[in-house]
Amino acid sequence: MSTVKQAGGRPRESRVDHALAEAVRALLSEHGYASLTVDAVAARAGVSKAAIYRRYATKEEMTFAVLVHDLREEPPADTGSLRGDLTALAARIGDQIGRSAADVMTGLLADVRADAALGARFAATYLAVERSVIATLLDRAVTRGELPERPDSPVVHALLLGPLFTWPIVLGEDPDRIPKLAPVVARIVADALIAGALPPAAQDGLSGGS
Amino acid sequence: MSTVKQAGGRPRESRVDHALAEAVRALLSEHGYASLTVDAVAARAGVSKAAIYRRYATKEEMTFAVLVHDLREEPPADTGSLRGDLTALAARIGDQIGRSAADVMTGLLADVRADAALGARFAATYLAVERSVIATLLDRAVTRGELPERPDSPVVHALLLGPLFTWPIVLGEDPDRIPKLAPVVARIVADALIAGALPPAAQDGLSGGS
Repeated sequence: MSTVKQAGGRPRESRVDHALAEAVRALLSEHGYASLTVDAVAARAGVSKAAIYRRYATKEEMTFAVLVHDLREEPPADTGSLRGDLTALAARIGDQIGRSAADVMTGLLADVRADAALGARFAATYLAVERSVIATLLDRAVTRGELPERPDSPVVHALLLGPLFTWPIVLGEDPDRIPKLAPVVARIVADALIAGALPPAAQDGLSGGS
Repeated sequence: MSTVKQAGGRPRESRVDHALAEAVRALLSEHGYASLTVDAVAARAGVSKAAIYRRYATKEEMTFAVLVHDLREEPPADTGSLRGDLTALAARIGDQIGRSAADVMTGLLADVRADAALGARFAATYLAVERSVIATLLDRAVTRGELPERPDSPVVHALLLGPLFTWPIVLGEDPDRIPKLAPVVARIVADALIAGALPPAAQDGLSGGS
């Protein structure tokens, strides 16, 4: 498990990161999200609270980084087509969502949305990383000539993430079915983009001003 | 504001319902979701707690019914096409999401997902109503000959609701842009269904057993 503030990856740091990740997962499994505290994670992992706060500013960032993804998320390898790239990304997003319990994801989201400063930080870090991955895939499609211009990344983000997030977490459907849902969503989004269903970012007024 | 248990709509009941809805909205606006209690709503509305519990089993059901929709949600009028029907439904869903603060929606969702009994009840009531509305629209499209069979309603539900829910609540994007996003989502879903992107419910293994 890599960290937010650490760019290198020294062995000693990795052991702490691993211990933190194991502690977070164990405590969530045993007691749920509401009871999770930085104190309890520090005690379980056998590290100081300072070691945790050197990595993560808040309990929420620690939980998201351990369960979903950290700040070093890379674009999936170029598959040669927009549909292939979006399928790879949807599989990854589906896996991230499917392995986290719905009560943990909703508790975390409620914390983030109840605190404007936390929400702004979340947007500037984890969401920005995901947005950048999507922009990279769209730019590849423009370079290949599959798309005339880059469509609005936030809208593509919502189209891809939305059904996969909603399936287990809002609708309470079986997370084990996400691996079958993910390629369906990816195909629908890729086909829609190639068919020109979204206007380019500069003109659509969806994510720009207007 | 109509209610869960009341089928009629007697004037005295309607006044209580209206007072409850006003009280819920005012308290959420002033103090947020975490502080909302049935006691506070009863006091603010000038009704007994018993009057609330005659209508709603829990605080969460009361909040959802007031803010999003009650159990008497009807399918939108037949527009003559699947795309038209889904556009009407997406506009309604977008309106329901857009008028509720993200912290209220996420707090409510966290409560529902933290309690299995509450989650099951939510699925059997409010989600079932939405699912039934979607099935009605899909059956109309089958009758018109736009679709050969009814596609899997839960998947269509996730495709339609997912991006609209995700936009303000997960991604923190501007809810004022939902009215422009909703028809884009509806068109993408309608086109995908008509193009056969989803196998019929009986065969796809997404929402069935398999």
